[in-house]
Amino acid sequence: MIKVGVVGGTGYTGVELLSLLAVHPQVEVKCVTSRSEAGMPVADLYPSLRGWIDVPFTEPDIDRLADCDAVFFATPNGIAMTQAQELLDRGVRIVDLSADFRIKNVSKWEHWYGMTHASPALIEEAVYGLPEMHREQIKQARLVANPGCYPTAVQLGFLPLLENGLVETDNLIADCKSGVSGAGRGASVATLFSEVSESFKAYGVKGHRHLPEIAQGLNQMQSGPDVALTFVPHLVPMIRGIHATLYARMKPGKEADLQALFEQRFKDEPFVDVMPAGSHPETRWVKGSNMVRLAVHRPIDSPNVVVLATEDNLVKGAAGQAVQNLNLMFGLEETLGLDKPARLP
Amino acid sequence: MIKVGVVGGTGYTGVELLSLLAVHPQVEVKCVTSRSEAGMPVADLYPSLRGWIDVPFTEPDIDRLADCDAVFFATPNGIAMTQAQELLDRGVRIVDLSADFRIKNVSKWEHWYGMTHASPALIEEAVYGLPEMHREQIKQARLVANPGCYPTAVQLGFLPLLENGLVETDNLIADCKSGVSGAGRGASVATLFSEVSESFKAYGVKGHRHLPEIAQGLNQMQSGPDVALTFVPHLVPMIRGIHATLYARMKPGKEADLQALFEQRFKDEPFVDVMPAGSHPETRWVKGSNMVRLAVHRPIDSPNVVVLATEDNLVKGAAGQAVQNLNLMFGLEETLGLDKPARLP
Amino acid sequence: MIKVGVVGGTGYTGVELLSLLAVHPQVEVKCVTSRSEAGMPVADLYPSLRGWIDVPFTEPDIDRLADCDAVFFATPNGIAMTQAQELLDRGVRIVDLSADFRIKNVSKWEHWYGMTHASPALIEEAVYGLPEMHREQIKQARLVANPGCYPTAVQLGFLPLLENGLVETDNLIADCKSGVSGAGRGASVATLFSEVSESFKAYGVKGHRHLPEIAQGLNQMQSGPDVALTFVPHLVPMIRGIHATLYARMKPGKEADLQALFEQRFKDEPFVDVMPAGSHPETRWVKGSNMVRLAVHRPIDSPNVVVLATEDNLVKGAAGQAVQNLNLMFGLEETLGLDKPARLP
Amino acid sequence: MIKVGVVGGTGYTGVELLSLLAVHPQVEVKCVTSRSEAGMPVADLYPSLRGWIDVPFTEPDIDRLADCDAVFFATPNGIAMTQAQELLDRGVRIVDLSADFRIKNVSKWEHWYGMTHASPALIEEAVYGLPEMHREQIKQARLVANPGCYPTAVQLGFLPLLENGLVETDNLIADCKSGVSGAGRGASVATLFSEVSESFKAYGVKGHRHLPEIAQGLNQMQSGPDVALTFVPHLVPMIRGIHATLYARMKPGKEADLQALFEQRFKDEPFVDVMPAGSHPETRWVKGSNMVRLAVHRPIDSPNVVVLATEDNLVKGAAGQAVQNLNLMFGLEETLGLDKPARLP
Repeated sequence: MIKVGVVGGTGYTGVELLSLLAVHPQVEVKCVTSRSEAGMPVADLYPSLRGWIDVPFTEPDIDRLADCDAVFFATPNGIAMTQAQELLDRGVRIVDLSADFRIKNVSKWEHWYGMTHASPALIEEAVYGLPEMHREQIKQARLVANPGCYPTAVQLGFLPLLENGLVETDNLIADCKSGVSGAGRGASVATLFSEVSESFKAYGVKGHRHLPEIAQGLNQMQSGPDVALTFVPHLVPMIRGIHATLYARMKPGKEADLQALFEQRFKDEPFVDVMPAGSHPETRWVKGSNMVRLAVHRPIDSPNVVVLATEDNLVKGAAGQAVQNLNLMFGLEETLGLDKPARLP
Repeated sequence: MIKVGVVGGTGYTGVELLSLLAVHPQVEVKCVTSRSEAGMPVADLYPSLRGWIDVPFTEPDIDRLADCDAVFFATPNGIAMTQAQELLDRGVRIVDLSADFRIKNVSKWEHWYGMTHASPALIEEAVYGLPEMHREQIKQARLVANPGCYPTAVQLGFLPLLENGLVETDNLIADCKSGVSGAGRGASVATLFSEVSESFKAYGVKGHRHLPEIAQGLNQMQSGPDVALTFVPHLVPMIRGIHATLYARMKPGKEADLQALFEQRFKDEPFVDVMPAGSHPETRWVKGSNMVRLAVHRPIDSPNVVVLATEDNLVKGAAGQAVQNLNLMFGLEETLGLDKPARLP
Repeated sequence: MIKVGVVGGTGYTGVELLSLLAVHPQVEVKCVTSRSEAGMPVADLYPSLRGWIDVPFTEPDIDRLADCDAVFFATPNGIAMTQAQELLDRGVRIVDLSADFRIKNVSKWEHWYGMTHASPALIEEAVYGLPEMHREQIKQARLVANPGCYPTAVQLGFLPLLENGLVETDNLIADCKSGVSGAGRGASVATLFSEVSESFKAYGVKGHRHLPEIAQGLNQMQSGPDVALTFVPHLVPMIRGIHATLYARMKPGKEADLQALFEQRFKDEPFVDVMPAGSHPETRWVKGSNMVRLAVHRPIDSPNVVVLATEDNLVKGAAGQAVQNLNLMFGLEETLGLDKPARLP
Repeated sequence: MIKVGVVGGTGYTGVELLSLLAVHPQVEVKCVTSRSEAGMPVADLYPSLRGWIDVPFTEPDIDRLADCDAVFFATPNGIAMTQAQELLDRGVRIVDLSADFRIKNVSKWEHWYGMTHASPALIEEAVYGLPEMHREQIKQARLVANPGCYPTAVQLGFLPLLENGLVETDNLIADCKSGVSGAGRGASVATLFSEVSESFKAYGVKGHRHLPEIAQGLNQMQSGPDVALTFVPHLVPMIRGIHATLYARMKPGKEADLQALFEQRFKDEPFVDVMPAGSHPETRWVKGSNMVRLAVHRPIDSPNVVVLATEDNLVKGAAGQAVQNLNLMFGLEETLGLDKPARLP
């Protein structure tokens, strides 16, 4: 059994992670930390976990965490970077679900996240935890930077197009829609039921923190000049789910059997499902599962290929991918603890 | 008082129209027809109208309709085109909320709607009822083709950009999101609560009937070659509201004060509100009102201008715009019966 | 024109009240106060009011308020009681939407609201603003205590039964369900979209502040011993609406034509609609309107009469009833500014 | 491996059952029948099952079903009763999720369901599949009548009170609230998103088919005269979940430590969780799980005990309980395939 600790278990990513770990056959949850809720049984805050997680929240104590084989950070940005080095020094392997180690360019990170990075040296070591791109490095990693929710969907959707040089990269567009759980569990007027139900809006159009993360990933997929990406996130009145609608202009003379290309690229991927031609994936088709479901379209009279990519933002977009990374890091079956269908309706 | 009839009053467009007409100070609703519900009081089907609409649904009888000054068609496509000529001949003025007279190119209409047009001669006479484009013709019209819900938002959002030749027209993108009421009140598995709640999807990516209507309108705004438009509609788990996210590549050397340009273009429009720079309009800001609220953005590192346009699909996207057209046709104050704030929350 | 001020205009009750006052033909909104938002234009906080309310939020200044003919308190409990006396002394009439003056028994109020009452002398003067019970006193009142949302629905539903002595009063049950806007606009985890959407729960089963208010009203309807009331509120994943399901045991030998009785009792009430026998009123049938829609049932094999009562908690349950009271206090048509149908869907 | 067939797999109960069976370690799904969808792969209708259920829908063929060890009927009422006998004769064991065998009194069944019963002889043999009441008989049963969704929650909530004779039985009240999936997947205006979202209503107040089923169960728990039950179901704008609010008058002199009583009664039940005193269970605490979570309250100034009972209507209220029954019938661990936490948020 792998002994794991979870730092910051009170948010939606935290409870999703605990729900997955609770049924993982090779994992034992040893400690769950929360400064604000220390002393309270986890199952008092999340009664869905009654009978499944018996430990209380504890103060984030480095010695207790160092007793674990692996530690997940489900914390706000800026926490993992201050604790990662000591845990690594004491032999603990880390999956960081925050953004601390995702962006290789330190000054770019500091610009977007508005703080000085506390462990720039670890950025280089950290492996970006998108298994479909970096599986072999993840297996060897001590420190995995788990991708953001939007970046997972957008990168996987553009991947076959960019790897094969089929589209113009000077004007990629990602029009993305997320459920409200992506905004977290903090008390806030903006995410009250009465503010977001029966409504729809864009946000962060000027620029969003996931933009540099996505762009970095897209650039790694191709050898041309850096991509120009327009990324517009929107808020959907639902709890879970991300839908990315991706637009890219086909290069002249590069028309291809896109359906076959996508199917071929992902045929061995356990968590990417290319839907039949003509499909319109619905976020509920992946709700509660670690799957990404994709469809690729060529609309009539349009110069663009349009890719539709869906995921559960809390699973493949966060906690599920973190468990997938844990499995890879510890040599387990990649799908362990994650092999169940989405729950519909 | 203007005597009006409503043909096909059982759908969501119909009930919205009746709700607006019920409080319109210059209108008297004389008859509401429905083949399926003939004999039932309107207020039995829609108890919200108890005390407001006292007539029953009646069979669609041409003589009764011919007694009206104006008739609205809130019918499925293919009905208005068979009845319009006779009503016009008998002096009735018509606002058709269906798609029968929206597209000038008959063969294009027949291709997209899958039927032979019954009154091609009237297509030419019909005025496209987007007041922000065709106000003067509407005032003179006997027959107004009320625009579709998506086309209203998309055309108004692109209007200042195209009129001023600021953007490339070879790759316009309209990523649109609609509430479920846009799909109508027909019994259908696809729009059951348990099918669309807590989910999000695209549909009609291959091609949607509103595409030629939008393209026709956009082409009228500019003098270059026909635009290439990619239009992707999505379904949002909310009842009302449309949000259009519009992308267009700025022409080189054409950077302009887009905020001022938009404000100038719409400053005299009673139902278009350009929001302050940096805004992200929410569909609830226009819920139940005839207003379109727009914002214009230039995202960082992007070649595109991004316009966000919101409307209530049942009001400005259908019944409210129909009343606005009626007001224009009969020389009334354009805002009559429509001057009230959106209802929030 | 009646000059009105609104104290505490940032909550949902406040914005609903402003939306109603904005279109009221005899009212001019002179000032809207908010300590936290002073200086900000009202329409910046609530863009739905752009073009309708042009004043900014101001500090709650007694001199500015004293210039008004009437002042609404849309404040948390405990504010109106400290400011009412001075405003009354300066000739201002008051509608208090908070609970400060609803309960005649001071010690009971102080027990349930956990504070010392600052103006016990005014409690006696205050008229409980349920027009269906106290219309004549409201017309003469300087200070109206606007009823709570649950109390309005429950009292109106039980009214004909208690006035006519038809039911046992030793075990009345009110199983009530409210939309989330009833919990207010404060930042709170408990009313986040991701906490309350796709879920349903009871709350306050042990005892809720509306219990003594309802009991006081029910006791005024009948001459027997005090009623025993079990009141259980629940939270529904919708923004607006209250549904009260009321149970009372029929007294032996008192079977009556309940349908006729209810219709008779409310036949002159502009805002109470007794639905046809067998109806199941839906909260959307009153959404956005000041109407209460009721139905009365005798289930098979049951000793109970069951009353179903629906209202919009923000309208008849708060701001609409406040305007109704204003109309009565100033000798206006009772329905002024409130005469419009519910908006469906 | 137990070979199972599912008759009628296209509805919500069917897909939930298939989702559970897909991960059940001792079950192999051999056939899924649907007259309307015969020939279509199950996963085409329910893409959430892609990779999990590989069989197509087939015509309901008795020979194919007879090859199974167990058959589930997830059909409309009136189907199982025509096919059960032959399958039993051929050695197949049956769990019927419809209402065909739930009510022991044939004429009562025929009255409420409006048809003649095709297999009255089997009604006596059928065991009512509420394990908390009839575990031992279920283990021996060939034919199990799986309880209805409301009946499961209501019976479990009243159980300790009735077994111990603590409450008056002449006026039990069950005010119940259900998510929309309980109404099934048939195309119907009444359950369209735009009809039920942002609204709440009661239905079937006059009398509902679950009333005799519940009453039968309650009568089995106690030795007094038959109970008088008032049962009012309501529709909640959410997909899944049932919340029963139960009212019963305490008998004089029977005050007891209800919390301890409830905990004691259910302490060995794997799927009934008595929450700590003062709790208000939320339906999301059991979403996707087979658990019932209960709380028991004594409101102030009330003669009643109030029980709050929550379940997922598709799991413990249908498919999950069916799997629980299968486990019992085949001597498996009762929790097999059902042991996972609810999924929150």
